[in-house]
Amino acid sequence: MRPTLRILATEGAARLGQLTTTHGLVETPAFMPVGTYGTVKAMSPEELEGLGAQIILGNTFHLMLRPGPDIVAAHKGLHGFMHWQHPVLTDSGGFQVFSLKSLRKITEEGVRFRSPINGSEVRLTPEDSMDVQLKLRSDIAMALDDCTPYPATEAQARESMERSMRWAERSYRRYYGQSGLESRTGGDAANTGQRVEDLPSGPPGGLFGIVQGGMHGALRLASLEALLRFDFPGLAVGGLAVGEPEEERLRILETVVPHMPADRPRYLMGVGRPEDIVAAVLRGIDMFDCVMPTRHARNGHLFTATGVINIRNSVHEADLGPIDPACTCYTCRHFSRSYLRHLDRCNEILGSRLNTLHNLHFYLELMRTLRTAIGEGRLASWARGYLALRWEERRRSGRGGEAAGEGRADGE
Amino acid sequence: MRPTLRILATEGAARLGQLTTTHGLVETPAFMPVGTYGTVKAMSPEELEGLGAQIILGNTFHLMLRPGPDIVAAHKGLHGFMHWQHPVLTDSGGFQVFSLKSLRKITEEGVRFRSPINGSEVRLTPEDSMDVQLKLRSDIAMALDDCTPYPATEAQARESMERSMRWAERSYRRYYGQSGLESRTGGDAANTGQRVEDLPSGPPGGLFGIVQGGMHGALRLASLEALLRFDFPGLAVGGLAVGEPEEERLRILETVVPHMPADRPRYLMGVGRPEDIVAAVLRGIDMFDCVMPTRHARNGHLFTATGVINIRNSVHEADLGPIDPACTCYTCRHFSRSYLRHLDRCNEILGSRLNTLHNLHFYLELMRTLRTAIGEGRLASWARGYLALRWEERRRSGRGGEAAGEGRADGE
Repeated sequence: MRPTLRILATEGAARLGQLTTTHGLVETPAFMPVGTYGTVKAMSPEELEGLGAQIILGNTFHLMLRPGPDIVAAHKGLHGFMHWQHPVLTDSGGFQVFSLKSLRKITEEGVRFRSPINGSEVRLTPEDSMDVQLKLRSDIAMALDDCTPYPATEAQARESMERSMRWAERSYRRYYGQSGLESRTGGDAANTGQRVEDLPSGPPGGLFGIVQGGMHGALRLASLEALLRFDFPGLAVGGLAVGEPEEERLRILETVVPHMPADRPRYLMGVGRPEDIVAAVLRGIDMFDCVMPTRHARNGHLFTATGVINIRNSVHEADLGPIDPACTCYTCRHFSRSYLRHLDRCNEILGSRLNTLHNLHFYLELMRTLRTAIGEGRLASWARGYLALRWEERRRSGRGGEAAGEGRADGE
Repeated sequence: MRPTLRILATEGAARLGQLTTTHGLVETPAFMPVGTYGTVKAMSPEELEGLGAQIILGNTFHLMLRPGPDIVAAHKGLHGFMHWQHPVLTDSGGFQVFSLKSLRKITEEGVRFRSPINGSEVRLTPEDSMDVQLKLRSDIAMALDDCTPYPATEAQARESMERSMRWAERSYRRYYGQSGLESRTGGDAANTGQRVEDLPSGPPGGLFGIVQGGMHGALRLASLEALLRFDFPGLAVGGLAVGEPEEERLRILETVVPHMPADRPRYLMGVGRPEDIVAAVLRGIDMFDCVMPTRHARNGHLFTATGVINIRNSVHEADLGPIDPACTCYTCRHFSRSYLRHLDRCNEILGSRLNTLHNLHFYLELMRTLRTAIGEGRLASWARGYLALRWEERRRSGRGGEAAGEGRADGE
């Protein structure tokens, strides 16, 4: 079914909403934990449910290489494969391919790259990406885009954006079958192992378009205009969290978001730190994904109300207190910093589990706080205090210059 | 409190019982999952409870090196440290020290070895082992023993056994405080960081003695006789599952077990494969531990009613069925072999979790089956069919010669 957003309340540009998808409701603003290979690293589906995750993200690039789309399709899609009954968004694979740098070649047709798994040549065209995502049966699929590097000249950004727009059109036509049955049996099919009889009768969800254009406001607006020629049920802002300064990112959001249709969900791809999410919600974004909570967890970096702690630090060796006394997560209710540091030192799986539970709880609790604040019309005042505290903490810890893009990664 | 065994039913030498400890009841025959570093690898305490684990094992050797006994003591022992409310048995560290081979030196005093963590010299005497186990506050502690290698001549086995018996006496006196306060403040204290005021007023549980003597029946009986001069509340058979043929192990059990006091729990250390456990229960053993289910799980070896499968095998690539259609565990109810193989290939933590859940379920379900069979007086007939099937399977898969000792390991 077509993903549809119902706006329940607004405060300034910020929106409280309910996104309806094939596999159920998502309250927005929403954070999507990243499940690269059909698992949010270290978590069971029931733990994700318990944490309040309502939608997760799967990486098309990784899943097309391992286990391959046909294996997932045989399980009736990612939901059956990974035992997750709630909504799934899949990215297009574009961002990961571009991260390969020297191992890939971009043409108008699409991208060809060497598989990092076995070195074989793989092709990813807009049609390929759609065929894979259709087999993954995600509730929300993403158009294949050319992710403009940072920095980029106006000419580079324009060329990249215009290619993304042509690919968005090809993605749209493929996903919704408007190119007709004939093209589905063409050469593309051979590449993905796609057979016409495998394709479901209609798309299992909806396709989002992605606004590109680098740090150039006029290009961003042109990109949005190009996407609006098609009936995408949702729109994403891509090409951010790629190393640009925070001010640039916020300027782009402030340029683009006000022109995005109010009735469609807006997804800021790959962002970010808690303060980045708050800043983007204030500017009207509804959906987020980032590997930061899960990857940080496995590296022992844990979020607290007063900043990030590194559990590997010897200061925690004999600390009997929880990660965060204010936190109500399973980890903080039952385990000490001392125990978590010990698990980390011994490279114990339970350490990754408990840390991941805590960090995801932190992010999902932040989203609940944001939703409640919007519903009660006190987001602006809450965010003012929150952002001031976070900035103060970053100044204090000397991590003020940390790139927001740290969380935008080539899958987990 | 003193661990006490209540026998509910017997069938031949096999016993159905209830072991009462400081932290509650354990139904016997019991299998103890191994939690080397204060965590049964990949499992949460609640998952262990859900699987029906009633007692787990902690490794003194590992915990004294990381995080050190004082850190655990500050959490009021292993239970508080790892958030496990049920009984815990700790080994003495002896087996692990002996596995170090060239890195250790045995004297009458005890063992000195190089820490595999940081190379520093560490001493482990019977007194040290008791002091550490008292700090871990286990429900059941084990005497420090000299684990006789296999094979050993009668003279070697006798010397080793007699040392173990002298160490058992020293362990007993230290654990139960019969050596008086004075010796507790001696040189030993410096080694373990032990201070008199740290010691609890009475032992938190009970100390088991360990029968040694290699493959020499007369030495085994002499060892048992030596232990019975003290009031150990339970007795273990050690020095098995060290590479000896199955027939030798069963012969030793058949020699020793009939002479062990009927009212005390009998623990066969480090055993073993499912068929080894069945064979030992038939001969009157009540307690087992082995890393096999957990370690096998992380290597993709999964137990089924018809033998062990290797989930890495490509035959499982597109297999939509569960590991074992007869299994009722969480993993088998929700995930395909295809998905588990995929998680293993991608080195995903969830793969280790799901595999471990399944293998531990298999072992704990086996113990439930054994207990029910004894209670209903049909163990012998059930075991006959079971062992025949297992032997048939091993012959078929060519693993007939696999050593039972594979599961006896230097911690996990």
